[in-house]
Amino acid sequence: MKLSTRIVNMQESPIRKLVPFAENAKKEGKKVYHLNIGQPDIETPENFMNAVRKFDDKVLKYSFSQGMPELVDAMIKYYKKYNMAFEKDEILIMNGGSEALLFALIAIADDGDEVIVPEPFYTNYNGFGSAVGVNVVPITTEASKGFHLPAKEEIIKAINSKSRAILLSNPGNPTGVVYTKKEVQMLADIAKEYNLYVIADEVYREFVYDNLEYTSFGNISEIQDHVIIVDSVSKRFSACGARIGAVLSKNKELMKQILKLCQGRLCCPTLEQIGAVELYNVSDDYFNAVLVEYQKRRDIVFEGLSSIPGVICERPTGAFYVIAKLPVINAEEFVIWMLKDFSVDNETVMLAPAEGFYATPGLGKDEARIAYILNEDDLRKSMNILKIALEKYPQKK
Amino acid sequence: MKLSTRIVNMQESPIRKLVPFAENAKKEGKKVYHLNIGQPDIETPENFMNAVRKFDDKVLKYSFSQGMPELVDAMIKYYKKYNMAFEKDEILIMNGGSEALLFALIAIADDGDEVIVPEPFYTNYNGFGSAVGVNVVPITTEASKGFHLPAKEEIIKAINSKSRAILLSNPGNPTGVVYTKKEVQMLADIAKEYNLYVIADEVYREFVYDNLEYTSFGNISEIQDHVIIVDSVSKRFSACGARIGAVLSKNKELMKQILKLCQGRLCCPTLEQIGAVELYNVSDDYFNAVLVEYQKRRDIVFEGLSSIPGVICERPTGAFYVIAKLPVINAEEFVIWMLKDFSVDNETVMLAPAEGFYATPGLGKDEARIAYILNEDDLRKSMNILKIALEKYPQKK
Repeated sequence: MKLSTRIVNMQESPIRKLVPFAENAKKEGKKVYHLNIGQPDIETPENFMNAVRKFDDKVLKYSFSQGMPELVDAMIKYYKKYNMAFEKDEILIMNGGSEALLFALIAIADDGDEVIVPEPFYTNYNGFGSAVGVNVVPITTEASKGFHLPAKEEIIKAINSKSRAILLSNPGNPTGVVYTKKEVQMLADIAKEYNLYVIADEVYREFVYDNLEYTSFGNISEIQDHVIIVDSVSKRFSACGARIGAVLSKNKELMKQILKLCQGRLCCPTLEQIGAVELYNVSDDYFNAVLVEYQKRRDIVFEGLSSIPGVICERPTGAFYVIAKLPVINAEEFVIWMLKDFSVDNETVMLAPAEGFYATPGLGKDEARIAYILNEDDLRKSMNILKIALEKYPQKK
Repeated sequence: MKLSTRIVNMQESPIRKLVPFAENAKKEGKKVYHLNIGQPDIETPENFMNAVRKFDDKVLKYSFSQGMPELVDAMIKYYKKYNMAFEKDEILIMNGGSEALLFALIAIADDGDEVIVPEPFYTNYNGFGSAVGVNVVPITTEASKGFHLPAKEEIIKAINSKSRAILLSNPGNPTGVVYTKKEVQMLADIAKEYNLYVIADEVYREFVYDNLEYTSFGNISEIQDHVIIVDSVSKRFSACGARIGAVLSKNKELMKQILKLCQGRLCCPTLEQIGAVELYNVSDDYFNAVLVEYQKRRDIVFEGLSSIPGVICERPTGAFYVIAKLPVINAEEFVIWMLKDFSVDNETVMLAPAEGFYATPGLGKDEARIAYILNEDDLRKSMNILKIALEKYPQKK
């Protein structure tokens, strides 16, 4: 039976495809430190489940297609803290940031259209792009420059008549970059000049370290008709399993169109929305404590990486990822080797090879993404294991 | 800012667009009997919430992209009752039947491809089709024939080199038709002969009345490579707000491809899956009681409609809908009139105008869908109100 070209061409998750090697390692009794996935170990605020447990309607009914009014209100309040004033019809609750992204792409691009994405990027940008016929055009950024953006002239080269949007995450997954105000303003200028949307995936908004200034695309007033914010409770409140996200835009006509897609899938789950409302009631102390914890972890990982000869990376400043250039020929082979043929006291580490985060063929082959989502002790052990592995690995550069 | 052509062309939900008229009627103090939506009033089995309440993991983590193993196992067991033997990699848990449908379309059709759909059909077939560039080609069925299928020769006329699948719901939403074994076999023969998929939306599988025989496409062994079953807990267990559905197919290569889309959206919500597992443990007594209830309701509505001069419909045998041809020029205008300018003892009825369920322009203008999802008393009152409305309505045929 014939499959669609778009599904066959869709990239398989580069993070998930090495899972069988990790499973085998565990079967052999090895402990594997998972630095390859973005599942934080931080506890989900208790008020989520407390609210869910109280639900006692006799019928678990459809909710509103645009999202529960209480959740929309909670997000309006949350965004006010960041000086963004969204109205009720400028927020649509989504099944995670993933659906937010998928629906945004469908609404702004037709088959064969293009979106410009700084690479390395979150692989699902490419995946969902393929699924709906939208091509990702990469702007390459580099480990040695901390994955900051190239000059405006470089970015403009990627624009043509099929370009519809600039799509990016900030703080960046998988790079850990936080774009400067200047960079955000430059992209905003480009969006305005070339009439492009900006799809701003800001799900890591709170994860910014070293007291850096963070600029949301929602704060650049002159391009609000262009800006589509993709949001999610997954990382913010360590509630990945809730699958609650949102699309926000001051472009009301666009939102009306995206609402049609929301009506098509009827609604987001009722219980998870009830829980999510309460997440938005956690105090700032929660974020502050989480931030302190992640900054410590970031430091451990960055110091660890910096102490390994041949590893290239700049100090990451946001999200909970870093991409490091490793002194190996092929990072995927190295990751498999660590799982299959290596251990320190029967323990090993799993990283995410970074090639899959690039659209440009050949790039990222010697890079890996490290998610610092474990406790300090485990991270220290992991960095030590990685150091020894890189000493012993035969296929070095 | 430019919107995509596909989103602009996407049909707005014909069911939801009249909601403001109903809201106004209620503001004026009128009671509105909602026969326009498929939200049942049957209680969700208690074991759903009981299971959810017990969840006490500290972190609400991502679940598996393919679905929780326990839920997949529960569905395997459920399908065995219907003589369908699915293996673990032949089931993917989805965010409702809606996502199941969307992902199935993406996986089997490219932009500009076609799916053949008996009309009137569930409007989201058309909606999601537009969203991903897949065109719906209708096969017209008629109220006077109980919406049964035309002859094979008629159906074959719709097939061309762009045809990828036959897509249909059975039991039928919005028609209430249950296709005979002969009809199912005819479509299976066509699918085989012309190498088409069958996307069989069987979410109303249990809702079959008069002890009619029900034939699932999963029971036609010679075309299992062609069959994609769309499923959901929404109607089966009156758990619409859970948003848990599934795609099932014996075509393992297809399932591998759809899994890529599942990985893209990471997972379905954890809690709702935990609840759904327990839904599949309810006894057959639950279904039997629900069935008796709906059959009674069906009888009240059908007897009611039959007693109204000029109304044409055959006795529906499945799901909880019926489409009736009304003695009016324009059913949408009639529905609006009932909400705005009419009432009996300050009560009125809302139906879903059926034009939006057709792809062929001009069809269905004088038809409406009635969902019999209220209790017997309310349905009796509703039928009486409808009868009086049709007597008094000025724009009659």
